[in-house]
Amino acid sequence: MIKVSGIAASAGIAIAKAFILEHPDYSVEKRQINDVITEIAKFDTALGKSKAELEAIKEHTLQELGEKKAEIFASHLLILNDPELINPVKIKIESELVNAEFALNETASQFIEMFENMKSAYLQERAADMRDVTKRVLNHLLGIESTNPSDISEEVIVLAEDLTPSDTAQLNRNYVKGFATNIGGRTSHSAIMARSLEIPAVVGTKNILIQAKHGDLIIVDGLNGHVVVNPSDEVVAEYRSKQKQYDVQRAEWRKLRDQPTITMDGVHVELAANIGTPNDITGVLENGGEGVGLYRTEFLYMGRDKLPSEDIQYNAYKTVLEKMEGKPVVVRTLDIGGDKELPYLSLPKEMNPFLGFRAIRLCLDRKDIFRTQLRALLRASIYGNLRIMFPMIATLGEFREAKAILLEEKDKLITEGVTVSDSIQLGIMVEIPSTAVMADQFAKEVDFFSIGTNDLIQYTMAADRMNENVSYLYQPYNPAILRLIKMVIDAAHREGRWVGMCGEMAGDETAIPLLIGLGLDEFSMSATSILPARSQITKLSRAKMQQVAAQALELQTAEEVVELVQGGLIYLWL
Amino acid sequence: MIKVSGIAASAGIAIAKAFILEHPDYSVEKRQINDVITEIAKFDTALGKSKAELEAIKEHTLQELGEKKAEIFASHLLILNDPELINPVKIKIESELVNAEFALNETASQFIEMFENMKSAYLQERAADMRDVTKRVLNHLLGIESTNPSDISEEVIVLAEDLTPSDTAQLNRNYVKGFATNIGGRTSHSAIMARSLEIPAVVGTKNILIQAKHGDLIIVDGLNGHVVVNPSDEVVAEYRSKQKQYDVQRAEWRKLRDQPTITMDGVHVELAANIGTPNDITGVLENGGEGVGLYRTEFLYMGRDKLPSEDIQYNAYKTVLEKMEGKPVVVRTLDIGGDKELPYLSLPKEMNPFLGFRAIRLCLDRKDIFRTQLRALLRASIYGNLRIMFPMIATLGEFREAKAILLEEKDKLITEGVTVSDSIQLGIMVEIPSTAVMADQFAKEVDFFSIGTNDLIQYTMAADRMNENVSYLYQPYNPAILRLIKMVIDAAHREGRWVGMCGEMAGDETAIPLLIGLGLDEFSMSATSILPARSQITKLSRAKMQQVAAQALELQTAEEVVELVQGGLIYLWL
Repeated sequence: MIKVSGIAASAGIAIAKAFILEHPDYSVEKRQINDVITEIAKFDTALGKSKAELEAIKEHTLQELGEKKAEIFASHLLILNDPELINPVKIKIESELVNAEFALNETASQFIEMFENMKSAYLQERAADMRDVTKRVLNHLLGIESTNPSDISEEVIVLAEDLTPSDTAQLNRNYVKGFATNIGGRTSHSAIMARSLEIPAVVGTKNILIQAKHGDLIIVDGLNGHVVVNPSDEVVAEYRSKQKQYDVQRAEWRKLRDQPTITMDGVHVELAANIGTPNDITGVLENGGEGVGLYRTEFLYMGRDKLPSEDIQYNAYKTVLEKMEGKPVVVRTLDIGGDKELPYLSLPKEMNPFLGFRAIRLCLDRKDIFRTQLRALLRASIYGNLRIMFPMIATLGEFREAKAILLEEKDKLITEGVTVSDSIQLGIMVEIPSTAVMADQFAKEVDFFSIGTNDLIQYTMAADRMNENVSYLYQPYNPAILRLIKMVIDAAHREGRWVGMCGEMAGDETAIPLLIGLGLDEFSMSATSILPARSQITKLSRAKMQQVAAQALELQTAEEVVELVQGGLIYLWL
Repeated sequence: MIKVSGIAASAGIAIAKAFILEHPDYSVEKRQINDVITEIAKFDTALGKSKAELEAIKEHTLQELGEKKAEIFASHLLILNDPELINPVKIKIESELVNAEFALNETASQFIEMFENMKSAYLQERAADMRDVTKRVLNHLLGIESTNPSDISEEVIVLAEDLTPSDTAQLNRNYVKGFATNIGGRTSHSAIMARSLEIPAVVGTKNILIQAKHGDLIIVDGLNGHVVVNPSDEVVAEYRSKQKQYDVQRAEWRKLRDQPTITMDGVHVELAANIGTPNDITGVLENGGEGVGLYRTEFLYMGRDKLPSEDIQYNAYKTVLEKMEGKPVVVRTLDIGGDKELPYLSLPKEMNPFLGFRAIRLCLDRKDIFRTQLRALLRASIYGNLRIMFPMIATLGEFREAKAILLEEKDKLITEGVTVSDSIQLGIMVEIPSTAVMADQFAKEVDFFSIGTNDLIQYTMAADRMNENVSYLYQPYNPAILRLIKMVIDAAHREGRWVGMCGEMAGDETAIPLLIGLGLDEFSMSATSILPARSQITKLSRAKMQQVAAQALELQTAEEVVELVQGGLIYLWL
């Protein structure tokens, strides 16, 4: 029995057999062949098996995840059925007398390169499809036992170096009970995905792939960040009981779905959700979200070969507003650039993209893009309770300029006879230290703040949170961060404004008592964190948390803050 | 007459003919030749001319800039005299019947590539030499009129896209009266170099190379950031008179060399200098520096193929301390990594080097490097008034760890029988927002702070100052920056610590009144800025500046702060 520690990325306990998800070696050797007919037959057999697999996966995805997700496999099938793409492989086998896997690999590489060189996002995705399909056929040609996550057909714990978006899209929710990865942190893609799928997960274990092998019995403890490999019966029993406790707790949480979030001493706060697409609203409502605190509009701009039209955007915003039925929806205007690229925009390569030309900086330069989004938002505003938020505001000048553009577009629409809501709140993200420090001045001109802790922490500590060498400096509990948060909240309240938070910190169990104490008004988090947070907050007293927060502000290190809060959580307040 | 505006980078007024410094097109065509003997003779002639040029430049550099700077040209001559490098060109002409410039270019490229691929800093510099020499010979082969800055032999204003370090090293100080460039800002290499050479300069004009041609009469107004092309006689006369005024002012400044720096109401502050090498001390003392506020030790680590030994470092530190004769010398420990690379360390490539693994972060990981430097510093400490400063401190934990290592090395040395000073002050750079916000806690444990504004501004505003698209956010006068500076100074003074500043801001005419008002104790700047700063400070009243600073802290934008200070400078306080 081995116990491996990592980062608790998604709550819950799962017990099942290990399924190792590895990306096998697809390197291909060139061999001269004599028997063309046998080689082509070998290729046809591999094609046939691949098509049968894809049909099954497509069917299964359709049932489990819906039409949209199944489309990708339909397009994989189209590739395998396209003579324009398949015949060149056979011709190559015949004319050059080479082995099928070499002929396939060479031919596919040419197509992939061709697609990639065309500066179209659409064709670049086709290159990705081509690559996936080629691997699938190579599996059969090379006799590689595929570990495609969509092939999983029994209850498993997935173990992997890391999970890519395409891996997680294909995970079968009925069979994948949990997962553990070597790399990643609480805010990595795989961790966020685990929380949204409500699968227990531990990430950043460093060596789970060394400690465990395919078929081992695995316990993933997503509550404490442990993975147990081949536990004794005793340990299994112990975790089964913990699992039950957690299930009971979850059932209790469910009861809070339609309750308001009120502290023991009667202070009401709002628990909202972060979303990326209109589809996410279902999860928000199921989890008792009182609003959308952050609608990341970037997804509307991705996976396309040109900018989304005003109407495409209008429809998305209208859908979200309608589905939320009058509950507040905070839409963040485009936060692209930096590390988030759009191929069709051809943004400049930068030395330090996190300190670069992104979000509002880009929008104030590319006003065409910005105006289209604002028009779409204004037109949609009558369908619900819209709040608009500008990202990466560093100076009052930027806010004023952005606001002036918004008002211009509003006037234009009204002149055109379009109805626009008159009660749209206008706020900013506070994610740049200068803005936190100047919050008193900003508070005179904005309707609300939303603190973006992910960026605020990385700029305040001058440490790229994606850079492993300095990730120790990504310290949400550093008193410097708490002091900046306090500055923002106090400044806002003096001017009668409300303050939300939409970074990972807002849903964090250790941070919540401090944030209640500091006076945060709105907490926006992953939908699945809302009920646990509500449960926690209803057991806290604001007055006591104010004392705790005041103490934390005078501590010297992040470690001391964690000790204060966690010590208190366990011994005092609950 | 055309007037072009740019950024005033180095004070003073210069009037002379334009010398356009361009990097010509060295692309070479391949031609088949018939007459090998003529082609080789052509090559030999070009070689001969190049050698004669180099001899002259070497001689001239030796007289003007000293032996060290002349060495580079000696090594260029070595290349041209080395048959191992020259014969292959002739063999290529003969065997392949190709033109000399093609043969030279191909042969040199091979050597350059070979040198560059060897991971030795030394050989990589040889590649740069080879490239320079090749260009020189190509000048003659291609009939390109060379615009090598070392060839300048009459009084000129150099106009260029930008000046590289190698360009400026070769500038003839007797003939180059000023310069203007298309790109660059106040902190770019060319601007810093201009101030250290005391040559008037205007940078960032965007289009001076379009507006002026070789031989045009040029006025560089480094006081106001203007360049005048082909001025009328009247305008020339006007600027000659301004030039005289400025000369008078400079003469007055000279008188302040041995004076202390005291405000009109009797507050004493210290004006120190930033240096990079022991050679810079001459300039510090000539300009009345009261200390060294920042000794950048990086240069000791550069231009080598391995880490500098403890003794090499010891000698450098000892020299600086001795030359400063008991005046304080603040040595910053190694600030490498990020954008500043050392080839022999093979640091990881990073997505955002400014938010990456650099300075103290690197030193706490590579303790071998850190300990060697600390030992060298401790051994040198008895030769003067040493202060040690750690860069890029973000948390108290980092400071404590670095300090513990220093104390360990001190104990070891004492055990070894080495004498170590007992009065070494230990401080930190404040250049990360978290550290400014936590200054009250740091002040309990450090002896002093030195505010590094260049980095503090870029992190606080989340804008890479080298990135043109966001350089508008590099705002030293943003009230957020002033508030952070105030936090640091107030926190330090409450604990009886002193605060210096070693960023560009410390020598800035607009910033100085504010910094006096905020209570800054030490200003460290380019040596040539010290006397103007002293002259300015002696005319200011601390009490009045406190009022101005208090007002500035409540303003909303950087523009308002500049207006307040510059308005006051002109109308009220002088």
